[in-house]
Amino acid sequence: MTDIAEPRVAASPEQLDEALAVAATAARVLADSTPQQRAAWLRAAADALDADAEQLLPLAQEETHLPVPRLTGELKRTTFQLRLFADEVEDGAFLHAVIDHADPGWGMGPRPDLRRMQRPLGPVAVWAASNFPFAFSTAGGDTASALAAGCPVVLVGHPGHPGLTRRTAAVLTAALLDAGAPEGVFALVEGQEAGRALIQDPRIAAGAFTGSLRGGRALFDLASAREVPIPFYGELGSVNPAFVTEGAAAARPQEVAKGFAASMALGVGQFCTKPGLLLVPADSEIPSLVVQELGAAAGAPMLNDRIRSGYGEALRTMAGHEVVSVLAGSADPDADPEPTLLRTSAAEVLADPHALTAEVFGPAALVVEYADEEQLLDVARVLEGQLTATVQGDEEDAVVPPLLDLLAERAGRVLWNGWPTGVSVTFAQQHGGPYPATTAVGTTSVGTAAIERFLRPVAYQDVPQSLLPEPLQDANPWGVPQRVDGVRS
Amino acid sequence: MTDIAEPRVAASPEQLDEALAVAATAARVLADSTPQQRAAWLRAAADALDADAEQLLPLAQEETHLPVPRLTGELKRTTFQLRLFADEVEDGAFLHAVIDHADPGWGMGPRPDLRRMQRPLGPVAVWAASNFPFAFSTAGGDTASALAAGCPVVLVGHPGHPGLTRRTAAVLTAALLDAGAPEGVFALVEGQEAGRALIQDPRIAAGAFTGSLRGGRALFDLASAREVPIPFYGELGSVNPAFVTEGAAAARPQEVAKGFAASMALGVGQFCTKPGLLLVPADSEIPSLVVQELGAAAGAPMLNDRIRSGYGEALRTMAGHEVVSVLAGSADPDADPEPTLLRTSAAEVLADPHALTAEVFGPAALVVEYADEEQLLDVARVLEGQLTATVQGDEEDAVVPPLLDLLAERAGRVLWNGWPTGVSVTFAQQHGGPYPATTAVGTTSVGTAAIERFLRPVAYQDVPQSLLPEPLQDANPWGVPQRVDGVRS
Repeated sequence: MTDIAEPRVAASPEQLDEALAVAATAARVLADSTPQQRAAWLRAAADALDADAEQLLPLAQEETHLPVPRLTGELKRTTFQLRLFADEVEDGAFLHAVIDHADPGWGMGPRPDLRRMQRPLGPVAVWAASNFPFAFSTAGGDTASALAAGCPVVLVGHPGHPGLTRRTAAVLTAALLDAGAPEGVFALVEGQEAGRALIQDPRIAAGAFTGSLRGGRALFDLASAREVPIPFYGELGSVNPAFVTEGAAAARPQEVAKGFAASMALGVGQFCTKPGLLLVPADSEIPSLVVQELGAAAGAPMLNDRIRSGYGEALRTMAGHEVVSVLAGSADPDADPEPTLLRTSAAEVLADPHALTAEVFGPAALVVEYADEEQLLDVARVLEGQLTATVQGDEEDAVVPPLLDLLAERAGRVLWNGWPTGVSVTFAQQHGGPYPATTAVGTTSVGTAAIERFLRPVAYQDVPQSLLPEPLQDANPWGVPQRVDGVRS
Repeated sequence: MTDIAEPRVAASPEQLDEALAVAATAARVLADSTPQQRAAWLRAAADALDADAEQLLPLAQEETHLPVPRLTGELKRTTFQLRLFADEVEDGAFLHAVIDHADPGWGMGPRPDLRRMQRPLGPVAVWAASNFPFAFSTAGGDTASALAAGCPVVLVGHPGHPGLTRRTAAVLTAALLDAGAPEGVFALVEGQEAGRALIQDPRIAAGAFTGSLRGGRALFDLASAREVPIPFYGELGSVNPAFVTEGAAAARPQEVAKGFAASMALGVGQFCTKPGLLLVPADSEIPSLVVQELGAAAGAPMLNDRIRSGYGEALRTMAGHEVVSVLAGSADPDADPEPTLLRTSAAEVLADPHALTAEVFGPAALVVEYADEEQLLDVARVLEGQLTATVQGDEEDAVVPPLLDLLAERAGRVLWNGWPTGVSVTFAQQHGGPYPATTAVGTTSVGTAAIERFLRPVAYQDVPQSLLPEPLQDANPWGVPQRVDGVRS
């Protein structure tokens, strides 16, 4: 058993350089690993994290102020994710194996034998997030996707939970090595400077990040400005608007208010999918019902001081906008934040959309009262890119189809009569969206499709069977799904 | 029948603005079009271009100096491509429809009903290339992929063949509109300034480009520096190295020399897949055999003055390198280029890889003599990203597996005992590669997978059947492949 008491951390430039050299070597071993090997590594990691729960959970609770039941559920999610990705690796469809046999009668002229599959990109830099200390941190979705794809991970630990990060890294690394993964499959680095050096290092092939718009954009800019630009998958920010139609507002105001209040206040509003904008008809009783619902909620500590001060600043800016009034809560920077509801009109949002649809990360939301449903659609039209957009409506309502269309243009996930917090890890999940929701509109950071971010296609032309990678051989020894001469197996 | 005599061209800022406004409106119509409609538009375009061959071919010949048989084949390729993409659109797998029914027993906790599919990105800016005036120009691969994906195209015409560009644009536009596509499905703009304005316009959702490293990088930088960054698919440059093992060099020197000479000189070397680097054993007779093969080839005019002067400059730089000697041809800037063979050693390439593996776009190549096969592998290790890499070898040769592995890390397509010119349009084709081959390592610009560049995933959560897009409905009215609860149909 590898010792997990003393995790290695690369902090100095020399240590970072060594970690990258080892990762680059590991990348070749990972690229040649079988799906069964990789799946075994992921499952070993999941088992080891579950087995260490009694150490990990108190560390997490102490460093993040999140309640233990929430953290227990998040650890469960994290190890479920590792195991689901192991299944997906064994399934093999993510390799996108395509075989075109040579065809002298091909319509544009004779074609050679061509076979394409996905191969791992190489070492991936992952930035941990603070708000999900398990699921979007050291052994979270980005790490799981990169390992599943066959890429070593160099993780930039989040300073918000340094002890948990080191313990998780140590447990993860030991489990991977004990299961047969090569030295260098995972490394932990710490510090903003190390992160900036990492994204600019030629040995890093891609970056993945969940965090603030400012921090993510800075890293995206570095990744794009390299002599050799690399993909940077940043999940940055989203206000997650919810649109209540006139029909829904009239039919079930209490239900809407209750659901919205619970979703916006959940986890002290520290979710990237927290609904921050609620569109309701101008005469609706929903805002006052939300105020009643929130009334019971007390203030609670946030994840860390930086998030607390960022919340205070964003809330003061929003509440200080001349067209915004405060319906509930307060912007007191010295108290633990309590759920805060602000109010404006749709006409004002249309006049200053950038300021009034900005994300406030924390337990605050803005109610927007609209005059008619044409104005509701107009607000949908001025939205920036979103992780999610929600409709509370009725199936027969005439405004619903155009509204859904507009929202599908702007959001990665469109919800019907639900609330956006809670992002299930499934095959169909899409956690992404146009900028500023993410820096990579075509990708997801949650769900099995997240693996595809760390792959690139390679075609082999006229290569003999004995020299082809297994997924491209006619005998298909790994039994992966293949598309052969245009036909899917 | 729409008039094709007077194509509309957007050149002024006002015209560009109008073209973009119309394209943005068209994007919604395209997003709602059925696969059958889109396929019909693509087939109508192919038919119209074929029907106009007698007008198009002489225009192309006059403006590009390419021989008519080559242009005839290229037009055939272009219309074949449009029809193949029409078939692919009807097939529907490119939509990647995934359905996860609600599951209260899901491992991490109850999951909602989640359904994801690919939707079009929106208006795409396409830069035409000069070297394939049909296949990579106005109605070429990027245009075909974007239209197939359901995205309007705003094309920046190539100044190297302005008459052909206008005629092609007119024929294409008329065919699309006559087949029922909306106004704005395709627009032509001209001029470098219009192009720069285009890539920075908020209504443009993606860019696609084939051309020079300098020009493509400048556009990539603009696309990445936008307030809202967008994907930019640039195919920039590649030296397309070919590695001849000791065994192959000894067994079939004449065959290797003949194949290489034909591939490097084809079309006056004006292919992005022209093999520009030939690795041979130090004592091989292949270089002198290549010189003999090239001896028969006369000089020929290049596509245009800009390419001619760029070739002259790059060739003078390479030939002027102190470790490079000239085996055949000449760098005379005043004559039509003749096939030119340069020589250096692998040790010199390892000492100055950047300069000695630079692309020279035109009929020139550098023979690199290696001392032993370890040095052959070392050269493979210092290569930048490539569109293609070729091995001439024998199946049992011990150097071959590690060589193929190294090349698959660096190239989009790996060839065995063939030559890289000639890029078939198929399901498995991969025309891409790590930078500087392209700016988007995970994508291809040739083959049916090129369509996927212009799509983004959207998930629908708990949306009723009647409000879901057809590909995500349980009844599957379009009959597209669906993955349901993890299982593929």
